Amino acid sequence: MSRAAGDTLARAALSRLFEPSDTVGMALVAVVGPEDALRIIRGEVDAGPAGRRSLRDALDLSDGSGDPLKDGLARWGPRLQDLAPERDLATLERLGGRLVTPETEEWPEALDDLQLARPLCLWVRGRARIPTQARLAAIVGSRDSTAYGASVTTELAAGLALRGYSVVSGGAYGIDAQAHRAAIASSQESDVPPTIALLACGVDRYYPAGNEELLRTVADRGLLISEVPPGSSPTRYRFLQRNRLIAALGAVTVVVEARWRSGALNTAHHAAGLGRAVGAVPGSVHSANSAGCHRLLRDGSAVCVTDAADVAELAGPFGSCPSGDRRREGAVHRRAQDGLSIPDLLLLDGLPLHASTTVDKLAAVAGLAPRDVLAGLARLELAGLAARAAGGWRRKD
Amino acid sequence: MSRAAGDTLARAALSRLFEPSDTVGMALVAVVGPEDALRIIRGEVDAGPAGRRSLRDALDLSDGSGDPLKDGLARWGPRLQDLAPERDLATLERLGGRLVTPETEEWPEALDDLQLARPLCLWVRGRARIPTQARLAAIVGSRDSTAYGASVTTELAAGLALRGYSVVSGGAYGIDAQAHRAAIASSQESDVPPTIALLACGVDRYYPAGNEELLRTVADRGLLISEVPPGSSPTRYRFLQRNRLIAALGAVTVVVEARWRSGALNTAHHAAGLGRAVGAVPGSVHSANSAGCHRLLRDGSAVCVTDAADVAELAGPFGSCPSGDRRREGAVHRRAQDGLSIPDLLLLDGLPLHASTTVDKLAAVAGLAPRDVLAGLARLELAGLAARAAGGWRRKD
Repeated sequence: MSRAAGDTLARAALSRLFEPSDTVGMALVAVVGPEDALRIIRGEVDAGPAGRRSLRDALDLSDGSGDPLKDGLARWGPRLQDLAPERDLATLERLGGRLVTPETEEWPEALDDLQLARPLCLWVRGRARIPTQARLAAIVGSRDSTAYGASVTTELAAGLALRGYSVVSGGAYGIDAQAHRAAIASSQESDVPPTIALLACGVDRYYPAGNEELLRTVADRGLLISEVPPGSSPTRYRFLQRNRLIAALGAVTVVVEARWRSGALNTAHHAAGLGRAVGAVPGSVHSANSAGCHRLLRDGSAVCVTDAADVAELAGPFGSCPSGDRRREGAVHRRAQDGLSIPDLLLLDGLPLHASTTVDKLAAVAGLAPRDVLAGLARLELAGLAARAAGGWRRKD
Repeated sequence: MSRAAGDTLARAALSRLFEPSDTVGMALVAVVGPEDALRIIRGEVDAGPAGRRSLRDALDLSDGSGDPLKDGLARWGPRLQDLAPERDLATLERLGGRLVTPETEEWPEALDDLQLARPLCLWVRGRARIPTQARLAAIVGSRDSTAYGASVTTELAAGLALRGYSVVSGGAYGIDAQAHRAAIASSQESDVPPTIALLACGVDRYYPAGNEELLRTVADRGLLISEVPPGSSPTRYRFLQRNRLIAALGAVTVVVEARWRSGALNTAHHAAGLGRAVGAVPGSVHSANSAGCHRLLRDGSAVCVTDAADVAELAGPFGSCPSGDRRREGAVHRRAQDGLSIPDLLLLDGLPLHASTTVDKLAAVAGLAPRDVLAGLARLELAGLAARAAGGWRRKD
């Protein structure tokens, strides 16, 4: 067996032995490589005093703080009997999938930011390649979303898909499902998959059951990704761990709706902890489903985002459109008096609309020297804001 | 005439000559005092080369950058003919008011933060004393507010009044009027006036006309304050300047609703520039009346606030209630599994609800050593989350 194939098979096997973020397991892999890690766990070879010392170093442990490998072996041992990595890889291949490992070219480097909590491998189902971090934007939120949340999710996901982003979410009910759906509906012909669902269970399972059709469509048009092998159940622990992958994969994570306590906040905090941009959508202060978003805004964990342009701007260089002035150019037009100096504004305030007035009276009313009144009137006339009238000046609107 | 009475009369006069934030005029007052400033403007005495030099220094001007005093005199001259400070003070007294100057004990020190843009004096109408900065909270927003804005304003103003704050606003239609009304309706017996309206016109005028009854009530139960003398019109310039007083007076300024361009944003930026706390109320991303609030949140000028407790917390020590845990203690109760260690969470996930399972099976399912399964089950049993069952263990909900 080639070294690459050996690594792949070993990682497939280890991903069934280790729960996500098993740092002792990941440290063992970092120290001896996946194949030898598996041999040590199987009892075929011993780590030896040097291996144990390296492991302690990788875990930043001092001497005399217990034996992490012994604890690990006790934890992994009960699962050894179920190991069948060839069968798991065959299942994946049958589903049109592939195992993406740190040794393969497709590996998302963004996941390396997770350090020892990096996944062993990604079980990937779907034809498209995993896009680069800059093109991935996560949209997450409550399962029991409101009509408002669904509507904003649709706008954000559609707007991001149109800008060439791949929308990452968790495949759950509510905001997640709406994000996947809207991204698929708005996707353009492109080499970027419109959407990616990160699952807490194996990619052969459709969970929750009510999203089966949606998840089949995501597998067909986008990607289903999991760090646990086919057949694995979605446990609470795996849901929480899955959130770190959603947060780490993309350039930005947006929370559309979340209650005061919500898994979406966990994803947002993961993203912030990794230095990723985090956005939160504001909503009514009377909506319990926006309380979590407001919490993120209030404690400074997230930036306020109101549309896909905001999210793209937050995500960084790729796909961002020239900002700042885009709103001014839109619905709101500049008013003629914008940018006037203070004396000219005072003068404009003093000019009557329906009658005319003299320069001397204007000087007293506006609190300006007569000389400055004359100069200011000339500027306002040029700007179309003042006009000469019988016996003096008046405002022009 | 006593020195104090002389200062008062001079400031009353100067407040008709100078538009708000006339920095040259204020520098002149700072250098020679109000009475001599008035004499110089009247041409009764000359500032002299030394006075002119001090004035340039006070204005941080280099030599050869024109003569600010000459420009000032040309600006103030046309208004000299209208000066009648005794008449203005008599008008104020008839309305039950008083002139508050930096020389009086009631002067709000917070206004000194405005430096050369500090008002000359405050024309105050109403019986109550101006409260200290820590007890003043400004609520501002759109004139064309929505039902949502009105409802949130009511909650905030009433909540702040109940906490002993005086609610400061601008007496305008919409959010301002609602803030004044709700504060009055919720006010307690206290030495703090429930609400204060900062006007852009004289305190003898009711502007806008539709708020006359409200402004009369504010004068009766709270305070009307202006930096311009009785009879003065509310010009656009004075509205903008008035905003700086709203921002400077209080400990916090909250924007409830504001369009993308709104005077309320001007007030918020004044407050931020003075180092005051600024809050913005989130709303629907589809509401144009919340766009300005979201703009403040997005650019970091304001903190997200959703209720009076948030505002009080932002305002600082006075009246703030123990925070952080107040929401948890409220509607949302802790769930039994909160705070479980990762192994115990894995174990709980592995326990079946409707059947029982063995320790060995649990070890494989949860990915734990059998020894750790036993210890964990004991902890979960203690927490009421696991129960012994025929042949093993099951979950207890």
